[in-house]
Amino acid sequence: MINGHTDIIAHIGYPTHSFKSPMIYNPYFEQAGINAVVVPMGCKSENYPAFLKSVFTLENIRGALITMPHKVSTVGLLDEVTDTVRVAGACNAVKRLPDGRLVGDMFDGAGFVRGVQRKGFDVAAKRVLVVGTGGVGCAIAASLAGAGVAAISLFDVNGASCNALAQRLKHTYPQIEVRTGANDPADHDLVVNATPLGMNEGDPLPVDVSRLSPNTFVGEVVMRAETTAFLAAAQARGCRTQVGTDMLYEQIPAYLEFFGWPTTTAEVLRRVARMEESLQTPD
Amino acid sequence: MINGHTDIIAHIGYPTHSFKSPMIYNPYFEQAGINAVVVPMGCKSENYPAFLKSVFTLENIRGALITMPHKVSTVGLLDEVTDTVRVAGACNAVKRLPDGRLVGDMFDGAGFVRGVQRKGFDVAAKRVLVVGTGGVGCAIAASLAGAGVAAISLFDVNGASCNALAQRLKHTYPQIEVRTGANDPADHDLVVNATPLGMNEGDPLPVDVSRLSPNTFVGEVVMRAETTAFLAAAQARGCRTQVGTDMLYEQIPAYLEFFGWPTTTAEVLRRVARMEESLQTPD
Repeated sequence: MINGHTDIIAHIGYPTHSFKSPMIYNPYFEQAGINAVVVPMGCKSENYPAFLKSVFTLENIRGALITMPHKVSTVGLLDEVTDTVRVAGACNAVKRLPDGRLVGDMFDGAGFVRGVQRKGFDVAAKRVLVVGTGGVGCAIAASLAGAGVAAISLFDVNGASCNALAQRLKHTYPQIEVRTGANDPADHDLVVNATPLGMNEGDPLPVDVSRLSPNTFVGEVVMRAETTAFLAAAQARGCRTQVGTDMLYEQIPAYLEFFGWPTTTAEVLRRVARMEESLQTPD
Repeated sequence: MINGHTDIIAHIGYPTHSFKSPMIYNPYFEQAGINAVVVPMGCKSENYPAFLKSVFTLENIRGALITMPHKVSTVGLLDEVTDTVRVAGACNAVKRLPDGRLVGDMFDGAGFVRGVQRKGFDVAAKRVLVVGTGGVGCAIAASLAGAGVAAISLFDVNGASCNALAQRLKHTYPQIEVRTGANDPADHDLVVNATPLGMNEGDPLPVDVSRLSPNTFVGEVVMRAETTAFLAAAQARGCRTQVGTDMLYEQIPAYLEFFGWPTTTAEVLRRVARMEESLQTPD
């Protein structure tokens, strides 16, 4: 119930139609007795820098969830960002410090990493393959690096984005072995599909699953189906897996902590979420 | 249920703690199947001009409810205002036209006038006395002038504010007879208490009720009690009366129309409103 004591989380992007966060956060806030509301704010790119600055002059703003098309431009609009933001090249969470400075973090990848860790897979010192180095792939690679993996292999049909991410990783985490140019899943402890392959019927699989070891943990970002063709193939080989929506739900506790609220679990969030439409695409 | 299709009404003021509109509009929107939400936005004066401009660059903003301390400064920040705004010297509703221009109106007084008219009292060609020429008194006088009264008497212990309102009335409505300096209710068809007298126990009455004719309609802006001491005294003389909260509920249909939604009635709004605290003060 919104009243004069309600704090705002500005959910900024454009278009807003596919926003899912209000249907997860707001029922959760209600259930948890937190007087706050996630408000979708449709903001076009040309208006975004001024709006971001201005919305953070409000007295009752607790923070902002940043989504497309502003995740990249946000990096240059803040006073302080984390290593994860720098490596991902993108930012999806902003808050104002007591001294007025705006700080940003990036939780898309944190959602992925928290999910696999809560499933008992410790990423520390592991060898990982991230296929797809668009926004979500960069975010996952950045969070895996921050969580202490030993080696990261990157692959994308867009070689330039792949090489740029590799450079950012090497610069911030010189101790990590970074390779590019191959999507062979063999000899990796963790393999992630961060491409859109699987969004459409009949898409090819992102890697050659016959080269997957049963000991490899396999993750997915596509949310079209709970179990995509890729995950089904990995499970058939005996692999443990993580579905795309886990990344979405698992990142919310990270956001709540960032905004200064008590944490929660993905299970609680899934239970209270009111999804009117199916989850077709990562947000 | 807020989702990616929800329109925003920005409720801008500071402090936000006494805001009542979210608890009236939001339950109404839910009940009426309107996908919109009134969001309290606590904005200090120094940040307001930039924030007002910026919030209206959002694609899903339907309008703004402006409250203290911004009702006066808003007048100078818009592209177009109504006569009511000009006479009241204040604005509490803003929307963006399709061409991008910001236009403002003022509904505090409209709430009062709609209320008495719906009670069967036609204000056209009547003689009215407005006691108190602060913000709410100016708004009521402006709306009464717009509704076609014949004569307006104004009184305030602050003679300067009283004279300034008189000047604005004469400038915009030269056909109306405007007088200042006396609070004698005799020979008036409508008498309004627009002072804070009645907010505190033991306050004197705003006019000498022994001079009230039983044919005079008496209205009140104080919301401390449903029937204030002034209204009780007027009723004892046989006068018809209007309580303070009527002004609040009766102005909301005017806002809804301004924002382009179907209208409703104060009765519907009172039925769905969820008021957690008593209504102590006009907003």
